Amino acid sequence: MKINQFAQIHVDVKQALAELQTIGLFTAGATNKPLATNLAHFLHSCFPEAATKSGQDEAIAKLLLDEQTTVSDFLVAPTALSAAQFYNLALQLLGFEAGTDFDLADPLKFMRSSQLAFDATDPVDNTTLLTNIYLLLTTHTKLGLTFLDDLANRGFFASYTGPRPLFFNGKAQAVFDTRNLIKEVVYVEAPLDTDQDGQRDLLATTIFRPRVTDDLKIPALYTANPYFKGINNVDAMLHDVDQELAVKTATVKSTVTPQKPLPAPRQVAGQANQTEKTATDLSSYALNDYMLARGFASVYAGGIGTRDSGGIRTCGTVEETISTIAIIEWLNGKRRAFTNRTDNIEIKASWCNGNVAMTGKSYLGTLATAAATTGVPGLKTIIAEAAISSWYDYYRDNGLVVAPVDCQGEDTDVLAELCFSRQKDAADYAKVKQVFADELKQLQVGQDRTTGNYNDFWDERNYRNQAANVKADVVLVHGLNDWNVKPRNAEKMWQALKQTKNQRKLILHQGQHIYINNMPSLDFTDMMNLWLSYELYDVANNAPAVLPNVTIQDNLQPETWHGQHDWAPTDRKRRLYHFTPASLTLDEPTDAAFVTFKDDNRRLFDQHEQNETRWLHDFIAEPTTYQAQQFRLKTAPLTQPLVIDGNIVVTLQAAVDQPTGMLSVLVVDYGKGQRLGEVPAIIERNGYQLDPAGKTDNLVEFKLQAATDFKLITRGHINLQNRVSRSTSLPVEPGSFHTVNFELQPTHFQLAAGHQLGVIVYASDMGMTVRPQTVANYRLDLNACQLSVPFTKH
Amino acid sequence: MKINQFAQIHVDVKQALAELQTIGLFTAGATNKPLATNLAHFLHSCFPEAATKSGQDEAIAKLLLDEQTTVSDFLVAPTALSAAQFYNLALQLLGFEAGTDFDLADPLKFMRSSQLAFDATDPVDNTTLLTNIYLLLTTHTKLGLTFLDDLANRGFFASYTGPRPLFFNGKAQAVFDTRNLIKEVVYVEAPLDTDQDGQRDLLATTIFRPRVTDDLKIPALYTANPYFKGINNVDAMLHDVDQELAVKTATVKSTVTPQKPLPAPRQVAGQANQTEKTATDLSSYALNDYMLARGFASVYAGGIGTRDSGGIRTCGTVEETISTIAIIEWLNGKRRAFTNRTDNIEIKASWCNGNVAMTGKSYLGTLATAAATTGVPGLKTIIAEAAISSWYDYYRDNGLVVAPVDCQGEDTDVLAELCFSRQKDAADYAKVKQVFADELKQLQVGQDRTTGNYNDFWDERNYRNQAANVKADVVLVHGLNDWNVKPRNAEKMWQALKQTKNQRKLILHQGQHIYINNMPSLDFTDMMNLWLSYELYDVANNAPAVLPNVTIQDNLQPETWHGQHDWAPTDRKRRLYHFTPASLTLDEPTDAAFVTFKDDNRRLFDQHEQNETRWLHDFIAEPTTYQAQQFRLKTAPLTQPLVIDGNIVVTLQAAVDQPTGMLSVLVVDYGKGQRLGEVPAIIERNGYQLDPAGKTDNLVEFKLQAATDFKLITRGHINLQNRVSRSTSLPVEPGSFHTVNFELQPTHFQLAAGHQLGVIVYASDMGMTVRPQTVANYRLDLNACQLSVPFTKH
Repeated sequence: MKINQFAQIHVDVKQALAELQTIGLFTAGATNKPLATNLAHFLHSCFPEAATKSGQDEAIAKLLLDEQTTVSDFLVAPTALSAAQFYNLALQLLGFEAGTDFDLADPLKFMRSSQLAFDATDPVDNTTLLTNIYLLLTTHTKLGLTFLDDLANRGFFASYTGPRPLFFNGKAQAVFDTRNLIKEVVYVEAPLDTDQDGQRDLLATTIFRPRVTDDLKIPALYTANPYFKGINNVDAMLHDVDQELAVKTATVKSTVTPQKPLPAPRQVAGQANQTEKTATDLSSYALNDYMLARGFASVYAGGIGTRDSGGIRTCGTVEETISTIAIIEWLNGKRRAFTNRTDNIEIKASWCNGNVAMTGKSYLGTLATAAATTGVPGLKTIIAEAAISSWYDYYRDNGLVVAPVDCQGEDTDVLAELCFSRQKDAADYAKVKQVFADELKQLQVGQDRTTGNYNDFWDERNYRNQAANVKADVVLVHGLNDWNVKPRNAEKMWQALKQTKNQRKLILHQGQHIYINNMPSLDFTDMMNLWLSYELYDVANNAPAVLPNVTIQDNLQPETWHGQHDWAPTDRKRRLYHFTPASLTLDEPTDAAFVTFKDDNRRLFDQHEQNETRWLHDFIAEPTTYQAQQFRLKTAPLTQPLVIDGNIVVTLQAAVDQPTGMLSVLVVDYGKGQRLGEVPAIIERNGYQLDPAGKTDNLVEFKLQAATDFKLITRGHINLQNRVSRSTSLPVEPGSFHTVNFELQPTHFQLAAGHQLGVIVYASDMGMTVRPQTVANYRLDLNACQLSVPFTKH
Repeated sequence: MKINQFAQIHVDVKQALAELQTIGLFTAGATNKPLATNLAHFLHSCFPEAATKSGQDEAIAKLLLDEQTTVSDFLVAPTALSAAQFYNLALQLLGFEAGTDFDLADPLKFMRSSQLAFDATDPVDNTTLLTNIYLLLTTHTKLGLTFLDDLANRGFFASYTGPRPLFFNGKAQAVFDTRNLIKEVVYVEAPLDTDQDGQRDLLATTIFRPRVTDDLKIPALYTANPYFKGINNVDAMLHDVDQELAVKTATVKSTVTPQKPLPAPRQVAGQANQTEKTATDLSSYALNDYMLARGFASVYAGGIGTRDSGGIRTCGTVEETISTIAIIEWLNGKRRAFTNRTDNIEIKASWCNGNVAMTGKSYLGTLATAAATTGVPGLKTIIAEAAISSWYDYYRDNGLVVAPVDCQGEDTDVLAELCFSRQKDAADYAKVKQVFADELKQLQVGQDRTTGNYNDFWDERNYRNQAANVKADVVLVHGLNDWNVKPRNAEKMWQALKQTKNQRKLILHQGQHIYINNMPSLDFTDMMNLWLSYELYDVANNAPAVLPNVTIQDNLQPETWHGQHDWAPTDRKRRLYHFTPASLTLDEPTDAAFVTFKDDNRRLFDQHEQNETRWLHDFIAEPTTYQAQQFRLKTAPLTQPLVIDGNIVVTLQAAVDQPTGMLSVLVVDYGKGQRLGEVPAIIERNGYQLDPAGKTDNLVEFKLQAATDFKLITRGHINLQNRVSRSTSLPVEPGSFHTVNFELQPTHFQLAAGHQLGVIVYASDMGMTVRPQTVANYRLDLNACQLSVPFTKH
C-alpha cells in the first residue's frame, strides 16, 4: 500500500502548536505538561463518539503500544515513549491493523513503505509528541481521509465554537453542519434569448449551502451541468456510420444568422431576502459535497435549454458560454436573479463572498474551461476534469469524423438533443419545439459530417482560441486512457495556458473517463481543498508551490504518483523509429520496401459480433485474425525501460486504389505483464466518508490486473485528403503516394525493459471512424514512414 | 414497461375521501366544490417545492391535458374533463414523458400496457376526480415510488402537523424527519460468556431513530449483521480443494464440551435516560432506511465476537442465535443494556413499542431465521432474504463438501474468522486470541471436511429442526439463480413453516444473491411497508390477504411477476424422463445401454485459465470441449412450454473404477433465446430516493440480454458413499453399480416451446466440489437412470 499526500504541509514546531490550539485540542500550556498527560488528553479526544471518560477509556483500552504493553498500562504507569510505540499507536488510530497491515515490532517499516510521513525522534519527548500528533492529524487513514477528517466525521467538531471557516494544515475543516442544508433555487437572467420568446433566458440555479448563523459570506463551487435535470434518449437520432468517405469539395462556411437585438432585462418588481423554491435535486459530485461541510456552497445549473430554464441547447456555442458565466456574474453581484419566473422579484447572492470555482468532469469540465476563457470576474479557479477544450478534438480528427469511444454516431446535434431536457415538460416543450428544431438543422449543417473538416462552426467551439483571456488559475485532470474526451484536449489547453500568467496544475491518471477523488493512493481531495482554500478564502497556504505542477500516475507500479515539472513540452528529446519490413528500428532503412493491406474491416466486423471493444482487442492481439487488414511492426525487445512523454508524431507515405482514403494508427506496448486496470476497483462500497452527516462515496483504487500480452498506448486518425491541414482538402489520386504527418494522442507511458514498442497502420476504425463498405487497398512506402517518439526519464 | 403493484389497495369512495382528508389534501367539503377547483387545489399541492402560488403556477403551466390544451388553459376556462385528459395529466405527474413513454392521444393504452391502475369513467365527474387522485397517489412513478412518496420527497409533509405515524393506503408515510436522526450505541448483556472471561458478553447495538417529539413509541427493524463492524481477510485460511475424495470411515460425533456455568448478570449501578455513545456507523440496508422516515427505528448488531462486542464468533451455533435474540429481548424490555461497558448504568429501550421485525440478506437473513425459530416474544415478523436455513445446505450436499459459488475453500471456520472483527482491535484481540483459536479448532473438527457427512455439528446448525417453534410471521425472499445460498434453503424452510399457524409469504426472483427493493417492475418496498405496518403498528390493512402467498418472477418475460398459491408443493404432477443413448425421453427404454465418461476435470481445469465461471460455461456449451468428461442428453424440442416448479429428482445407476466417487448433475434449458440477466442492470444511479432527506439507492431492473444458446436451470451433487443418506457412508466397490436418488436444487423455470430440456451427468465440479487429481472412469446404466420433473401451469 502506497499513500501519496501531496497536500500535506510540513510546518515548524511553533506553527504546529499554534494550529493544535486553533482546533481546540491543546492549550498553550501543553508544552509544560508531562508527556503522558498530553498523550492521555489526545487519546481521549480521539474518540469523540464517546461522551464519557468511561467510553473513551474503553476505546483506549483496545490499543497496544507494543506486543507487551497496552496503552492503558502506559497511561497508568508512564515510562519513556519510543518512536516505535508512538507509531504503533498512530497506525492503529489510522485504521491499520496490527499483524495484518503492519508488524508491531517495526511500525516504521510500514510507515516508510506506505510513504506515510513520520518523525523518527526516539524516544519521543513532549514537544515531539505534540508535533507528532500534529503530523498524525494530517496523515491519511486506511480509508483515504486525514485523521482529522476521520475525527470530524466521528464528531470531533460537534461542539466546536471557534471561528468558521477553520483551516488546519492549510485546508478547510468540516465545521459546518450539513445535515440540514439550505437547498434553494433561483432564476438567473442571462443576457440571451436563445429560444426567441422575446424575453431573456432565465436559468434555474440550484444552491446547497450550510446554514451560517453569523454574517459569514462563503465562496461557491459551481458546476455547470447540462445533464443535471435529466437527459433525453437519443438512440434514434444517432448518425449512421456505415458510410463511405466523401470526396470533399468545399468546406462549410458559417451562415451568419442576423443577430436579433437582445430583449431588455426584466423590470424588477421588488426585492426578496429569501428564496421561495426548495431544491429537490440530489447532489452528484463528491468533491462539492466534501467541501460543503468545510464552508463552500455548491451551485449547480443546467444552463440554457435544460428543464426549468429558458433557452435551447446549442452545444458549445458562445451562447452556451454566456449562459454558463451568467451564474458566476450573479454570484459576484453583477447580474440579476429572481425568486421565480413570474413575479420579477430579485434575489441577491448575499451569502456569497463573490469568489467562485468551477468544478466538474466531461461536459461539466468543458463548460468550466469555456467560462475561464472569458476571463469573467469572480471566477478564481477551475478544476476541469476530462474536459473538452475544442469540440473538434471531441468529434473529429484530421478531417475525419472520429467518435468518442462507445459513441459512434454521436455529434453536436445529438448531444444538444440529449441535454435539451425542457423537452420533458410537455407544455413547455410545445412552445420551443420549432425554434429547437431549427437549431438542430443549423448544428447539422455546421458540424458537417460529410467532410469532417475544421470550419467556422468548430472554430467557434475551440475554447483555446481565447486561452489568453483566462484569468482564473487552472487545474486540469485527465485520464491517459480516456478515449471519450481524448487527452489532446488537456494537452493543447495545458500548452495554451502557458501564454498566461495564471497558476496551473495538471493531474494525469491511468484511468478512462472517471473521477479520482476517492482513492487512498492519492490525496486528490486534500489537494483540491488546499487549492480551493487558497483560491477562494485567500488562505496563505502556499498551495501553488506545495502542489506539483504535473502529477502523473505511474502505469506500471500501482499506487505510484510522480510529481514532475511539465508534461509534453515541445522540447522533449525524441527517438526516430524507421519502418522496415521486419521491424520498427532506430537504424535508417537502406532498401526500398513497400507493403500493402486492405480495408474490408466493415465486412469482418459485420460478420463477427459487432462489438467495438472486442474488435479492437482482436485487431491488436497476436496472432490477429485481421492480418491482411493492417501493417504491423514492432521494435526489438527494449534493453532499457522507455518513458514516452508527449505527442508521438507519425509520418506515413501511402497510396490507395480509391479516390478517398484514411489512415489509422495504433501504438502498442507488446510484452506479457500485469497492468493497471483502466477502471478503479471498488475497495469498499461507500467507504469514503465525505462529511460528518454521513454522505459517502465508494472507496476505489486502480489495481494490477491479471497479466496481458499488450496494452494500447495511443492512437490517431487522418483523412488522406487532409494531408495539408484539417481545414483544407486536397484530392486523393488513386494509386499515387501521399504523405501524411500527424500527432497521435499525447500520453505518458512507461514500457518495461524486455517489452516491444509496436505500431499498427490500418484504415477504417470500427469504434471511431466511418465504416466504408467499399474495399480499399492501401500501399505504404516504408522508407518514408517514421514514428517520432518523445521520451523522458522518471 | 410493466409495473406490478401488489401492495396497492383498492378502496371505496368513502375510504378514499377519508384518507385524502387524513393527509391534509382535501377537506370534507371537497365533494361539493367544482371539479376545476378541486383539480386546481390538487395540482398546487403537487409542487410542494414551490412555496408560492406563482411558483406552483409555473410548474402547472408545463403540463398538457392533450395536444391542444394546456392545464393552465383548462383551469382558466374549465370544460368537461375526459378520462384521457386526466390520465395524460396523471402520467406527466408520474414522470412519464409525452411522446416518448406514452402518446397524448391515448394515455389509457399506456396505463393498460404498463399495468397501472386507472378508472375509465368518462368524463370525470367530481367524485371520480377525487377517487382518481387517491388512486394516483398510490400509483408508482417512473422511478418506482408511489406518487405520494415522490411528493413527500419533494416536501409534501414538511409542514404536516397531523398524527404520526401516518398511514395511507395501508402503508406508513414519510412524516418523520430523518435529517437529524438519533444515532446511538448501547451494550446489550447476552446470557452468554463465549469468550470465557467470566463476564456475560456485551453486544454493541446501534440504533438509528427519528427524533419523536411526543411520547410516541415506535417499532424496530432489527438487522443482525456479523459484517457490520468490518471483516477480516481470510484468503490465507481458505481450504485447499485440490483434494481426493476420502474413503469414509466414521462420522464425527460432537465432543460435548462441559457446559461452564453462566456468569451472573452484572450488578446494575444506576439508570440512564440517555445513551452516551454516538453511533458513527453508516446504515447499509435500503429497506430499513426507507422505513426510518415512516416511523420505524433501525437497529443493527454485529453479535458476539464482532468489534466492540464481547464473545467470539461460532458460526451458526445456538450461542449465535442467543446473541441474536438478546437484542430483541432488550427491545422488548426483557433483557438489560448498558450505556457503556464499564459503569453498569442501565439504559432501557423506552422509545420502542416492543414490536420488532428482523430484516437482512444472506448471513443477516440467516440470523433472522435463527431468531424466529426460537419463538422469541416481540419478534413479530422476519423478512429473510437469501437466508440459510441449514448450514449443511450452504457448505455441503449429500455427503460432499460443496462450496457456495465463488467460495471454493470456505467453510464455517473461515466464515467465523472473517466475521471475528474483534481482531481489528489489537489489545482487545490479545485477550481472546487463544479462546478463539480453540474455537476454530473445534469448528474444523465438527465441520469435518474429510467426510462431508451430516453430523451433530451440522444438526445444531439446522434451524429447520426448530421450525415448529416459529411464532413470527415470515417473509422469505430468494433468487432462483442464487448459487451462493442455494434455493433449497428457502424451499425447505417454506415447507417446514407449513406446520405452524403463522402467516408466510415467499418472493422468488430471477437474480443471484441480491436485494430486490429497488426495481420499478415490483413494488417490493411497498409490499414490505404494508406488511410491516400490519405487523408492527397493527394497522388493519389486511396485508396477509392483499399480498400473494408466493410471488414469482417470470424467467422469460421481463418485468413480469406472478402471484401463485404455493411453490414446490409435494403433490406437484411430475414428468418422468428416461435416459436412452440418444435422448432424454418420456418413453420407457427397451434395450440395455451403458455409457462412460471420465473424471479428469482437474487436469483440464488446470490447463485452462482456472476460471470457474468460464469452466461451467464451456462445460455446458455446445459443442463442448469436455465431451469425454460428461454424459449429456436432451429431450426433443418441446412442443409446448414447460413450467418446472419444485425439486427435480434424479436417479442414477453408476459404477466407478475407484473406491470413491461422486456424481454431479446439471439440468439445462437448450435453445437460442434472449434471457433475463441474473444481475439487475442499473437504470439510474441513485435514482431511487428513500426519504425526503435525500437518501438514495440505485434504481435497477432485470433486463433481457443478448440471445444465448442455453441457460442452467438447476444442479446437484452426491457422494456415491452417501447413496443411503447424507449422514451414513457405505463403501464404493470399484466396478460395481450403485444407485443414487437425490433432489436437485428446487426451481421455478419456464422452458419455451421449441427448446430442449438437457441433463449433464459428470463427476467433479470445479466451482463447487473437491477437485481430485486421480483420473476416475464412470459408467452409467442408462436403463436405471431417470429424471423426475415437477411441473405446473402459469
